[in-house]
Amino acid sequence: MMSYLSHIKDCNNCQLANFRPFYVDGIRVGHLKHDFAERLKSWPTVFQVSPQAVRLDPHLCSLAARTQAMRTVVEILVEQGVIPHWHGESYPVTGTSKAQVLFTLDRGAASYFGVRAFGQHLNGVVNDNGQLKMWIGRRSRSKWSDSGKLDNMIAGGLPYGISLSENLIKEGWEEAAIPPDLCAQAIPVGYISYCMETPLGLKPDIMYCYDLELPADVIPQCQDGEVEEFYLWPVEKVAALVQDTEEFKKNCNLVIIDFLIRRGFIPPDHPDYLEMVAGLRVPL
Amino acid sequence: MMSYLSHIKDCNNCQLANFRPFYVDGIRVGHLKHDFAERLKSWPTVFQVSPQAVRLDPHLCSLAARTQAMRTVVEILVEQGVIPHWHGESYPVTGTSKAQVLFTLDRGAASYFGVRAFGQHLNGVVNDNGQLKMWIGRRSRSKWSDSGKLDNMIAGGLPYGISLSENLIKEGWEEAAIPPDLCAQAIPVGYISYCMETPLGLKPDIMYCYDLELPADVIPQCQDGEVEEFYLWPVEKVAALVQDTEEFKKNCNLVIIDFLIRRGFIPPDHPDYLEMVAGLRVPL
Repeated sequence: MMSYLSHIKDCNNCQLANFRPFYVDGIRVGHLKHDFAERLKSWPTVFQVSPQAVRLDPHLCSLAARTQAMRTVVEILVEQGVIPHWHGESYPVTGTSKAQVLFTLDRGAASYFGVRAFGQHLNGVVNDNGQLKMWIGRRSRSKWSDSGKLDNMIAGGLPYGISLSENLIKEGWEEAAIPPDLCAQAIPVGYISYCMETPLGLKPDIMYCYDLELPADVIPQCQDGEVEEFYLWPVEKVAALVQDTEEFKKNCNLVIIDFLIRRGFIPPDHPDYLEMVAGLRVPL
Repeated sequence: MMSYLSHIKDCNNCQLANFRPFYVDGIRVGHLKHDFAERLKSWPTVFQVSPQAVRLDPHLCSLAARTQAMRTVVEILVEQGVIPHWHGESYPVTGTSKAQVLFTLDRGAASYFGVRAFGQHLNGVVNDNGQLKMWIGRRSRSKWSDSGKLDNMIAGGLPYGISLSENLIKEGWEEAAIPPDLCAQAIPVGYISYCMETPLGLKPDIMYCYDLELPADVIPQCQDGEVEEFYLWPVEKVAALVQDTEEFKKNCNLVIIDFLIRRGFIPPDHPDYLEMVAGLRVPL
C-alpha cells in the first residue's frame, strides 16, 4: 500500500551505519560504503583510510589539486567497472556552505562518495478554465536510470560553474523546448532535501523547486531524447498517481507532494501532515 | 545588523543544556528549566524529579487524571506567581503524533513545561492591479505579550478540541472581521517549526501557515481589541521591514520569510537560502 509518506520514507531510507564519513580539510563532505572505502586504500597518497573514516590527504590543499587527484581515481574506477558510468558533468563538492567548493567530482561518482548534490525540478502547470493541470513527462526507455518512469516537466542536476537561473533555462529548452523568456518566469518556491541509500552508495540531495504556469498553447517537446512523451493531467490525477502507485521516479514524488502541500491540495488535518512536511526537508 | 536569517536564529536560540526532559508514559513531551524542575518536587505524587529528567507519575495513566493533576499544580503555581498568567485556553500535549493527546495544559503554562504548541498564521494579501500587497496588524499596546509589535493579519494558538479550519475561521472573525466564507478560502501552505528559549522556558512551536487573497473592498477590522491598527503595504515594504528591523513579533518574521520564499521574492541564489529554508522547519 503506497501513500505520500511512504515515498518520503523511501527517499530517506539511509542507515548511516552502512557508511563511513568522508572528510576534506576537516569538513565532512560525504559518506562511503565500507567496501568502497577499503578499495580506496589503493591510493595511499590520495586517501587516508581508517575503519572510522576516510580523509582526503591534507597535502591536496587546493581546489585544482583535489579535483585532479579525484578525477584520476574516478577514471580508473570507471575503467575497472567499479563505477559503471562516467557522466561528463561536474558537481561541486561542498561542506556546510554551498559557496565554499572544495573540489569538483563527476556526477557519475557522486553517490559513491556520498556527496551532497544539487538539482532543479520544475512543476509545469496550466490553468484550464479554473482547473489546474500539470505537465508530466515519461522518461525515455533508453535512459540509463529510471527508464520509463514518470517525471516532473523539467528536472536536472546543477553542474559546477553555472547559475541556477541559467541552468533552469538550459534544462527547460533541452528537456521540454520551453522558450527561455517563458522559463525565466518560473517562480522559485523553496527546496526539498532527502538522503537516499542506493545500490551505488548515498545520495544526499537538495532539489530546488520551481512552479511555472504555462499558456495553453505551449506544448512541451523534448529536444534531447530524455523524455519520450508529455502528458497534461489534472492535478487530482497526478496526486492519485503519486499517492497510489510507484509510477514516478522516486524523488519526483516528493516534488509533487511539496506542490500539493504548498497549494493546499493536501490539507493540514491529513494524519501524516506533520511527518510529511518535516520529511520533505531533512537536515543533510 | 538584522537579516532574514538572524530572525530565524533568534527563534531557534535554545540551549538544551539549560533544560531537562519531561516524560509522560515514557514519551518525551517537553523540557523544563532546572530550577522549575526542582520546584516540582513539592508534588511527589505527581512528578518523579531527578537531575536528568522529570517524569509524570505513572499512576496518572488517563488523559483525565493527568489533566486534572497538572491543572491543580498549575493553579497553585499561578497563585504563587511562579507562572504569571492563567490563559484560559487548553493546549493538547502530544508525543510524536499530534493525534495522540496525553493530557491538556493551560496555554499560560506551556512554555514552563516546554511542550510543543500549535498555532495558525495567515498572510492576508491583496492583488492591487498586479502589485502584491500584504495586510499587517499592529498588536494592541495593552496586550500582555509583544505589545505594539507588527503581526500577521490573523494569528492564534490552536486550542484543544477545535479543528484547524474552525479555529482559523474563528480567529479570522475575532482578529480581523473576515467573513467566514471568505476565510474558508484560505489556502493551507505548510507549517513552520522553531524552538525558542524564553524567560519563561522553552517554546517548541508549530505554526500552520495560510495564504488568503482578499478582495480590495474587504478591510480587516479587529473585533476583540488584540490589534490596534491594520496596514496594507506592498510586499517589498513588508520584506524590508522584516529584513532590516525588529518591528515584527519574533515568530511572525518567519511566517513572512516563508511567504517570500514560496512566492519567489527571496531567490535561491540568496547566500543564506539553504540555511533559511532548513531553519524554517527544524525538527522538534
